[in-house]
Amino acid sequence: MTKTRLEAFSDGVIAILITIMVLDLHVPHGDDWSALGALAPVFVTYVLSFVFLGIYWNNHHHMLHVVTRVNGAVLWANLHLLFWLSLTPFVTGWMGENHFAPVPTAMYGIVLLMSAIAYYILLRAILASEGPDSRLARAVGRDLKGKISPALYAVAIPLAFVNRWISFAIYVSVALIWLVPDRRIESTLRD
Amino acid sequence: MTKTRLEAFSDGVIAILITIMVLDLHVPHGDDWSALGALAPVFVTYVLSFVFLGIYWNNHHHMLHVVTRVNGAVLWANLHLLFWLSLTPFVTGWMGENHFAPVPTAMYGIVLLMSAIAYYILLRAILASEGPDSRLARAVGRDLKGKISPALYAVAIPLAFVNRWISFAIYVSVALIWLVPDRRIESTLRD
Amino acid sequence: MTKTRLEAFSDGVIAILITIMVLDLHVPHGDDWSALGALAPVFVTYVLSFVFLGIYWNNHHHMLHVVTRVNGAVLWANLHLLFWLSLTPFVTGWMGENHFAPVPTAMYGIVLLMSAIAYYILLRAILASEGPDSRLARAVGRDLKGKISPALYAVAIPLAFVNRWISFAIYVSVALIWLVPDRRIESTLRD
Amino acid sequence: MTKTRLEAFSDGVIAILITIMVLDLHVPHGDDWSALGALAPVFVTYVLSFVFLGIYWNNHHHMLHVVTRVNGAVLWANLHLLFWLSLTPFVTGWMGENHFAPVPTAMYGIVLLMSAIAYYILLRAILASEGPDSRLARAVGRDLKGKISPALYAVAIPLAFVNRWISFAIYVSVALIWLVPDRRIESTLRD
Repeated sequence: MTKTRLEAFSDGVIAILITIMVLDLHVPHGDDWSALGALAPVFVTYVLSFVFLGIYWNNHHHMLHVVTRVNGAVLWANLHLLFWLSLTPFVTGWMGENHFAPVPTAMYGIVLLMSAIAYYILLRAILASEGPDSRLARAVGRDLKGKISPALYAVAIPLAFVNRWISFAIYVSVALIWLVPDRRIESTLRD
Repeated sequence: MTKTRLEAFSDGVIAILITIMVLDLHVPHGDDWSALGALAPVFVTYVLSFVFLGIYWNNHHHMLHVVTRVNGAVLWANLHLLFWLSLTPFVTGWMGENHFAPVPTAMYGIVLLMSAIAYYILLRAILASEGPDSRLARAVGRDLKGKISPALYAVAIPLAFVNRWISFAIYVSVALIWLVPDRRIESTLRD
Repeated sequence: MTKTRLEAFSDGVIAILITIMVLDLHVPHGDDWSALGALAPVFVTYVLSFVFLGIYWNNHHHMLHVVTRVNGAVLWANLHLLFWLSLTPFVTGWMGENHFAPVPTAMYGIVLLMSAIAYYILLRAILASEGPDSRLARAVGRDLKGKISPALYAVAIPLAFVNRWISFAIYVSVALIWLVPDRRIESTLRD
Repeated sequence: MTKTRLEAFSDGVIAILITIMVLDLHVPHGDDWSALGALAPVFVTYVLSFVFLGIYWNNHHHMLHVVTRVNGAVLWANLHLLFWLSLTPFVTGWMGENHFAPVPTAMYGIVLLMSAIAYYILLRAILASEGPDSRLARAVGRDLKGKISPALYAVAIPLAFVNRWISFAIYVSVALIWLVPDRRIESTLRD
């Protein structure tokens, strides 16, 4: 089993997801700056979701890079991840068009949380296939970021009903934590 | 004739199909849980169709993996399969938005049935090209699942007019049967 | 200059075009057979356009298969072809939703004609790069189908104002002529 | 780190962007030439944006062709470029549907300017990784076109409030400058 098609299919799905989100930036009817200003919340969520999907693509790229073989469990764990990611455009549009109302903001966090869990399951499926002494196992190490992120999402979801901006700030913080690509794998490869 | 572009094109089409279905999850106007609840039937069909398309991608992946050459007949049999799969978003949206009404539910089964038949034709076209002693021929064997599925769909279609939930239950059952990836090919490869 | 990305990009664009056309099959509001029947003209044009795009992908696949190098002129000739193909969903939707009214039917032919011309230009650009003794030059030969098709489109366009069904019949005929993939290249390769 | 997935992902995103723009060519309700004529401004912007995205794909193709390795900085610089390109369908639709009104026309220029800057940043990130004596560094040379283009955009943006057609003419001129693919790289490769 080669990983080429797994990578190609994942690239395709993430490329489409990251792109069709822009369809929620509906062309406004007016032709002045105020028409554009009304789109600001949708635009802000678009940027946030673009960054999140970019992070997933980036980490997926790094993770698969050191994978040597792929089995049925990995294929389905990958589809499971793509399923949760595929809900990103929906929650992005919902949160943006409702100006970060509590329920959509919580829902956005739920999709982020499920995506993080799905990524973790995929990582475990790959590690089970690669073995504990594999390059990936050494590169991942304790996987601190992978454990902190879902914890932060889990905190942010109920907080959306206290103050939506706290949740939003937490989402942005997690994105910033991950914006640094997974240098562990890069540095392990260099050794 | 190499199979690289056939795989790449099929990956592209299935990746797009699996993704644009999410566009039928129209962003609701309300911002509370009830607005989300109204989307439940559409969401359930989305999950079901995501799983079906995932199964097709998975099996397509396994089947093509052991193919050594591709001819014109295979290219067209593949396009024929992609045609029926391309109707999935339409029947998904129709069945979901009409809360599993009889006609859309039957129509959903017809598209599933035609896709299964198209997959079978593709398999035959590939086997004709690969020969009866090929690795694929040995891996496929009696192809029990491939023969039971269309039979179950053919039963489910008229039953939609008796009780829609019977048809729905049959669709879910077929998906569950296939969720286990085609281990025959994996195990044949291991030998 | 390798051809890998040219193929991948063309695969991507054609895969998206062939798929987003299905978005013009708007989910009907009714849930009975008559609601589906109202979609018949849109569905028929969808099938026709799916076949045309499938033919282009197929022939593109065959043509590029024997190409050894790619230059800037070929890249732009390819983008020019993709441009005209990209108008297919628009004219498909327009012709289907207006039940083959004369102007949309003529417009559909114009896009087919321009696509055929663009394909011819791409072929010439590749032949200029490959040379007159190349495998592609031998495989293409007199290119009878490539010359008849645009002539038939040019006849069909004005005839749409006489009787739309004549034009439609001509479009279907050209599709049937091409449904047989370009066996010249396959047979040249076998020799 | 290989560049295969970077190319595949970028191909995917640009292929989708270049294609979904056609969704803004909404199928008109009428079925005569005047219905088509009303779409003229949208069509003109579609052609312009198709050419711009084609230019970016073409130059991206040429640039990556001579790249030997990819690091995290390059991945993010590439995603940054794709972000600005992803806004092209939005500003295309906005400018076209408002018949080149000043604000949308300026906004179109802003997205072009940011894309040009993002491309420059990507080029610098790659050159930093490849080194000053790399083939790419020699091929790029003084990068005259890459420096003139953002300057012209920066001039065109405020001019949209003086006379929209001046800005439009500048955009078309930049496209024409770039329509000649980056022969520097091709000629450097030939040496």
